[in-house]
Amino acid sequence: MTDADAAGLDGRSIRVGLDVGGTKIDAVAVSPDGQIVGRLRRPTGWGEDAVVDSVVEAVAALAREAGFAPSDVVSAGIGIPGLVDSGTGRVLHAVNLGVETLDLADRAGDRLGAPVHVENDVKAAALGAAMLRGAGGSMAYLNLGTGVAAGIVVDGRIWRGARGTAGEVGHLSVDPNGRACGCGQRGCIETFCGGGALARAWGRPGALPVRDILDAADAGDPEAVALRADLFHGAAAAVRVLVLSADVERVVIGGGLTALGERLERGIRSALLAGAGSSAFMRSLHLDERIDLLPAGSPAAAFGAALIGASVPSKEIVSHG
Amino acid sequence: MTDADAAGLDGRSIRVGLDVGGTKIDAVAVSPDGQIVGRLRRPTGWGEDAVVDSVVEAVAALAREAGFAPSDVVSAGIGIPGLVDSGTGRVLHAVNLGVETLDLADRAGDRLGAPVHVENDVKAAALGAAMLRGAGGSMAYLNLGTGVAAGIVVDGRIWRGARGTAGEVGHLSVDPNGRACGCGQRGCIETFCGGGALARAWGRPGALPVRDILDAADAGDPEAVALRADLFHGAAAAVRVLVLSADVERVVIGGGLTALGERLERGIRSALLAGAGSSAFMRSLHLDERIDLLPAGSPAAAFGAALIGASVPSKEIVSHG
Repeated sequence: MTDADAAGLDGRSIRVGLDVGGTKIDAVAVSPDGQIVGRLRRPTGWGEDAVVDSVVEAVAALAREAGFAPSDVVSAGIGIPGLVDSGTGRVLHAVNLGVETLDLADRAGDRLGAPVHVENDVKAAALGAAMLRGAGGSMAYLNLGTGVAAGIVVDGRIWRGARGTAGEVGHLSVDPNGRACGCGQRGCIETFCGGGALARAWGRPGALPVRDILDAADAGDPEAVALRADLFHGAAAAVRVLVLSADVERVVIGGGLTALGERLERGIRSALLAGAGSSAFMRSLHLDERIDLLPAGSPAAAFGAALIGASVPSKEIVSHG
Repeated sequence: MTDADAAGLDGRSIRVGLDVGGTKIDAVAVSPDGQIVGRLRRPTGWGEDAVVDSVVEAVAALAREAGFAPSDVVSAGIGIPGLVDSGTGRVLHAVNLGVETLDLADRAGDRLGAPVHVENDVKAAALGAAMLRGAGGSMAYLNLGTGVAAGIVVDGRIWRGARGTAGEVGHLSVDPNGRACGCGQRGCIETFCGGGALARAWGRPGALPVRDILDAADAGDPEAVALRADLFHGAAAAVRVLVLSADVERVVIGGGLTALGERLERGIRSALLAGAGSSAFMRSLHLDERIDLLPAGSPAAAFGAALIGASVPSKEIVSHG
């Protein structure tokens, strides 16, 4: 008996979710009752055709591993970086994937024989994190990875905003004399707590530069101590922006830097407490109690993509409307 | 024939809205079809009892002036600074009014003989501005007065957030070396573009210190030139925060500083354009095209309060639950 049989699956009942990152795809299979019944990771190809191939192959491999037929897939959702038109499933400027323009929903949908819905990866992760945590109310998902961005979820729905920049807190400047940002501004939150910006500022070789910075800071390296302070300061600034604009109840932190675990969480919490030390107003917000970290390796992004895939694509609503 | 008769009013049909400020109350009467059929301003009393008296007297004077009977008032809405529990109508810490704790909805309601709903003044103004402009979609109302705060309206509803700090962008720090803020932090947006902070930094006597700053800056005073730049820089930062977090389609600027009119609007727009000059990302947001100023003396806040008063009070929903 396969896992899928054990989960009581029959016919087209598996919702697949894929988080397509710069180096790997995280794929999950979700049963009708919302359980993750299979998961695997595979490398991502480079360029438009290879990305489509990677997605299709990941679904096939997931089906083999979790014991369901590819024809059991009732829907697929894909979270992917870059500019995503969630209505059409088109992806633009996903530079880390070598993608300039890709009609991902159409091309993957044709090959998979199932409807495909595509969403920005941070928004998908935000929805997945909200659902995994069972959080009602409002929540922001703050992604600390190479870059920094957030997704906002209210009452189980992604907050899309007017023009697709909801949660783009990484490019708010919090220091006019700060480091230059790739976006052309100075002192953006991302220059303080983005893994890419910290690695460039550190400038020494290493597979995990932010971990190296924390280790060197623990050993007393003054440059590392300053960069560590930047990391926590920048993440705390992002939390403040999210609470003092959208007023979300909780800020859940995810992304590659969560591999730092307790060291990251403790540092951000300390930065929030330090800010509250001098401000009764900030103290009244209890920000240090309103954050938590996703576990490293959380399937939130792929799970969120599966949920998005299961929703009716916008373009179907339009064509039947 | 009175104005009210002319508007085709009969029985209890007038919705009253009051914007209670530190020095004056702005009161409007709204007909069943949503037109403002009367308006007046009166001084605000100091302290709990005097605030209640001022509200009741303003409604009576409005009725006389607009030609309706006090018994025609079907509901009243009050926008007021301070911490407002919109469910109970209780106001806390309205320091500019001498109010520590005031059950304003109950006390004014008993005297007016009509249900009273109370809301934070910036949120009320945000709703009023959205309705006066007929804006669907999403909008932030950025209030530049003595202090700085915003209200967010989405699809005709006030965005309340989780704990009452939605839109509190005035106390986000955008410069760690900036001026000390009354909230205990440094470099808050309010220290750049709040009328109170600018007046303190300017430090010279005058009835309209921010206007004096602009005049002196036009005349070449270097200190005034720097403060003028702060004003526009801070307001531009607030616009960026609102668009890069909640992603509102438009930011409508109101509050006392709108008395500066075109000089204020042009300055903020220039600051947004200057920021976009060095950043393709910022250019893509077209922020300079997404702001506009309410006319000085706009009835937005009182009108919004009238709309809020006309909605069913939350506590009634609970008690009939």
